[in-house]
This record gives sequence, structure tokens and C-alpha cells, in this order.
Amino acid sequence: MAAPSTRQVTITDIAREAGVSVPTVSRVVNGRDDVSAATREKVEALLRRHGYRVQRGPRRSRAFLIDLVFDDLDSPWAVEIIRGVEEVAHAAGAGTVVSAVHGRSSSAQAWLQNLHRRASDGVLLVTPDLQHDLGPALRDSSVPMVVVDPSGLPPLDVPSVGATNWAGGMTATTHLVEQGHRRIAHVGGPSRLLCSRARLDGYRAGLESAGLQVDPDLVREGDFRQASGLREGQALLDLDDPPTAVFAASDQMALGVYEAVRRRGLRVPEDLSVVGFDDLDMATWASPPLTTVRQPLAEMGATAARTLLDLADGREVPHPRVELATVLVVRSSTAPPRSERLAER
Amino acid sequence: MAAPSTRQVTITDIAREAGVSVPTVSRVVNGRDDVSAATREKVEALLRRHGYRVQRGPRRSRAFLIDLVFDDLDSPWAVEIIRGVEEVAHAAGAGTVVSAVHGRSSSAQAWLQNLHRRASDGVLLVTPDLQHDLGPALRDSSVPMVVVDPSGLPPLDVPSVGATNWAGGMTATTHLVEQGHRRIAHVGGPSRLLCSRARLDGYRAGLESAGLQVDPDLVREGDFRQASGLREGQALLDLDDPPTAVFAASDQMALGVYEAVRRRGLRVPEDLSVVGFDDLDMATWASPPLTTVRQPLAEMGATAARTLLDLADGREVPHPRVELATVLVVRSSTAPPRSERLAER
Repeated sequence: MAAPSTRQVTITDIAREAGVSVPTVSRVVNGRDDVSAATREKVEALLRRHGYRVQRGPRRSRAFLIDLVFDDLDSPWAVEIIRGVEEVAHAAGAGTVVSAVHGRSSSAQAWLQNLHRRASDGVLLVTPDLQHDLGPALRDSSVPMVVVDPSGLPPLDVPSVGATNWAGGMTATTHLVEQGHRRIAHVGGPSRLLCSRARLDGYRAGLESAGLQVDPDLVREGDFRQASGLREGQALLDLDDPPTAVFAASDQMALGVYEAVRRRGLRVPEDLSVVGFDDLDMATWASPPLTTVRQPLAEMGATAARTLLDLADGREVPHPRVELATVLVVRSSTAPPRSERLAER
Repeated sequence: MAAPSTRQVTITDIAREAGVSVPTVSRVVNGRDDVSAATREKVEALLRRHGYRVQRGPRRSRAFLIDLVFDDLDSPWAVEIIRGVEEVAHAAGAGTVVSAVHGRSSSAQAWLQNLHRRASDGVLLVTPDLQHDLGPALRDSSVPMVVVDPSGLPPLDVPSVGATNWAGGMTATTHLVEQGHRRIAHVGGPSRLLCSRARLDGYRAGLESAGLQVDPDLVREGDFRQASGLREGQALLDLDDPPTAVFAASDQMALGVYEAVRRRGLRVPEDLSVVGFDDLDMATWASPPLTTVRQPLAEMGATAARTLLDLADGREVPHPRVELATVLVVRSSTAPPRSERLAER
């Protein structure tokens, strides 16, 4: 399928192609019902072909429901996004329908069928992967769509909300440099995800702007899960010249590094400083409490929900791509390296 | 408001009081539409007054939505319940509307308004506290209702799904006894909640059936949160004769005890064995991984959703109160006490 030539075609072009007047096209675009069914169908088909979104006009009845679709609900950050979306929807008098499609197209089809049996004011897709499965069908039914995007692959033609991954990686690394660390490792997420790449690039930038070289031995790849943090943490501690600090690209992997340290009979932060990424609840509950880069997941959900409600009301969305700032939260898992502390005595 | 005289009044009584035939009352009860509006209203009012639930008959159109209402979405177990409910609803072709009312009656009212603007096949209330705010209004609108009940206060007149808290407390304590512990402490949940009481009673039963006395110094009250586990863990370690093991009534409090141990420069399980309750994700990610009593939250959500869909279809629900079994999951936070290990050499 060729990409639609978004926004390059005017309503006048559509009217000419459909053989109807410009006000008629405008009525279809605004979702008004004073157009014959046959004309509406012809015009809507042309609008879709040219990548126009048919807006829901004020005459269309509101469903008082928005849909929030996850691939899976087993990620610990799911509930943070739900919380942000639900608050905005609740305040707007709308319910939040939460679904998981489990990466199965059969499941995505079942979800679409359910969606068509009832009404929805719009759909929030969490992670852009879902857009491949669901995007085309949603576009055909002209339901507004916004992507909440912690993985950092901004889709081009749909409004999306992400976080500043590169800046977060740089901040985490600079914090460790400022504590006196020179051998700082990175346990990254899957390299196929842009957010992993952005965090890694931020780590490199943090080292290089402090005049430090990137040691390829200290750059490892995990999958965001705890077991991969344990595995890479053990590999790092096995090195002849192990690091004194690790920046992990997720809180779960950071806790895996904790476990690698514990299994050696060592301690965080005395023997190894650790920084995570996300700031999930577990970062506060960890022992010691984890220094981490806060990804504002609830705010990302809330921002996406506000954008969706704007679209549902037929309002223009000024910024198709928004990235919310990440912030370093310093707790107890980082300290100067042992050599530095000895030198200070 | 006096409590309705539930189930003591027959359809014949209602028919007599309304001045209509028994089949007419039956038609209203079954949600059929071959009854005049005035008669329906009169009969429904009487049914409500006598605590009858008007069933949704097959003629009523399905909304393909069920509602899942939390007090707050900031509990780490919320997402597990959502996961269980969503799977069952999804398989039944229904969407799951997730809401939080934040313990505010204004918020509960706003939610009820949203509910009345759209349709719902039924409502799952998480924690029975919500029933006080929402129960009467829901009953009046004859929307089926089921309570998911991790706190253990079974409501009498609404189907509910809970877990075996007493058995879980007994199993956790017996596990510690079997490892050779004699001074076993308990950090319980808020004593106003029946689930806290049931877990504490299970702990006592575990000690007493091993011939051990309950030492009041070792029985502490927390609020399920991490900070209270830290506080009570520190108090226990301050005792002249501190315990060698702690059974905490939540995973969060267990991790607070971890932090108390770490702050003393001690280690779990070498210096103190710890058992939690819930088996949230964090139990696996903790360092060391936490031995805990698994509360089947996703299954509780799934069972409640199935019950609700049965009610929505007008089917009888055989068991108004179901308790699902808790299971001990042994990981790495429990070991024989130091004295025992020395004696074994």
C-alpha cells in the first residue's frame, strides 16, 4: 500500500473528483447528516484514499467512551498509563475501555469487532507496533487515533506522545560521571527499538562530553526484563576490569543488576552504583531505593487522552508529536566509586 | 434507609401488591418488552423496594461492555485484576471499562452519570468499600454487580470473589517453622480489614499447631505499604531478642523489611528470613527473590468477570461467595536460622 498523500489534496480537489459541490464535501468532512448516503459514501472513499480524516462533527452523538489498547497488560508500566488516561477521561465524563490484543491478529480482529458493535469516541494505541495491525481498519472507520509511545518509534501520520529518551540517557550518565565514576557500563534495551537507541546515544554523549571513551565491553544489550539485567550484570562483574557503575535502560534490568551484585556477596552502591530508567513503583521499594530516570508515563497517558478528546470534538491538534521531559530521581543506589572514597580520606 | 427484605417476598406477593397478574410480573422480571410502560414502572418500583433484582432478559440488547471500578489505580495489584477481567471479557466479545473513583463521592456520582449515558452489561466493584457508595444506585438501575474482594469483607447480598487469607497465613508460618525458626514475627495489615485479621489468625494457628506461643512483641500492625514494613522491621530488629523470621501480610511490607535489614548492614535470608503475601511482579524482581503467598488476583478478576457475564445473560449464579486458593511460592528469602545452620555443622 502506498502512503497516502496526506494534506496535499484540498477539499476543492475532492469535490471535483466526486462531482459534487465543495459545501457537500465539507458537510461530509464535518460529519453532518444532511447528505445522501450514496454521496457520503463516494466522498468518504475519496477522502480516505487521499489520507483525509473525516472529523466527527457536533451532530454526531458522543459515545462517552475512549479506547485504550495495549499489546499486553503484563508490563508494569501499563497501570501508570491507565491511571493517566482514566483521570482525563473521567474528568471529561467518559469511560476508558482497556483492551489487550496480545500481539495476535485474531485478537486484534476480535477487538475491532467489539469496537464496531458499540461506539467509541477515539482510540489510544500504546506502542506503535499496534498501529500496523489496527491503524488501517481504524482509519477506515474514521475513529480518531493517538499513539502513546514509550518505545520511541513515532508514527508519521498519527498524533503521538513520547518521552525524551536521549536526554534521559545523557542525564543518567552525567550523574554517574559527576559522582567520580570513569568505568560506567550500559545495559540497553532491544536494539530494534528506537528508544533503546536514543538512551544508548544519550549514554555515549554523556561519556564523551566528559572526555571519556566508550568501551565496547561495557555496552550490553538486554530486553528490558529483569533476567537480562541479571545476565548482563553477571557478565560485567566477570570482566577483568569491571565497571564501578551501571546505567540500565529499565528499572527491571537495574533490579537484575542488583541481583547479580547480591549473588557475588557485594553491595549496591558500595561496590557498584546502579541507575535505572522508568521510575516505576518498584524503584521506590527496591533495597536500596533506586536512582532512576523518571519517564512520566501517567502524564504521557493524560496528554494523549486530552489530544484524543480534542480530535473527537473536531478540534485541530497543533503538535502531532509531543515528547515529555524525563527527570533524574536520585535515591540511594549511586555513590562515589570505592577508589574515590578511599582517596578522599 | 431500612434494609430491603431480600428474597422473602415472592412474585405472587408483588403481583398482588401491584394489582397485576403473576405472568406480568414475571415478564418485567425477565426484562421482556411486552408490558406497558406504566405497568413496568409500577412493578419495577415494587421489585426494587423488596430487594429483587430485575434480570436482563434475552430481549434486552447487550452493551458489549462491562465496567471494572477501583477505588484507586495506584495499587500494584490493580493491573493483575484488570488483566484477568480483560481476558474473559475479550473472549466474550465485550470491552472492559476501567474506572477509579478515588474514594470521593463526587467522583462516584460522575462515574454513575457516565454509566447512565451509555450502556453496561454489568459492574465489577473492586473492594467492598465501593459497594456502600455505588451499590444502592446500581441496584436501582438493575445493572448486575459482582465484588472482587481482596480485602476479605464479603458483602452479603452481592456475589463476590475472594481468596483464602487464613490458609495463606497458616501456610507462610508453617513454612518458617519447618525451616527451624522459633521466633517468627508478623507484620500485619490494617486491623479494620477482615483479610488482615484472617492472615493474622492463620499465623497464630501456624505457630500454635507447632506448639509455639505467640509473643505479642512480635505481632505488629502496618498498612500494607512499604514504609510501614520498614518501620516495623526496624522496631523488630531493635528488640532485645529479635525474631529470626518475619511473615509480612503484603509483598510491599516484606520489601520494607528488606530495607530495614539492609540499613543494619545485615542480609536476607542469612540474618532474617522474610515471607510476603500477594506474589506481585516485584516478588520475582526483589533481591533476593521473595518467598510469598500467591494471591491469585488475575484468576479472581477472571472468575468475577465470568460470574458477571452469567448474571448479564440472566443465568443463575450458584455460589454467591467464592474464595480461590492461595499458594506458597518458595524463592530465596527464607533459610534456616543461623543457630540452626551452625548446629548442623
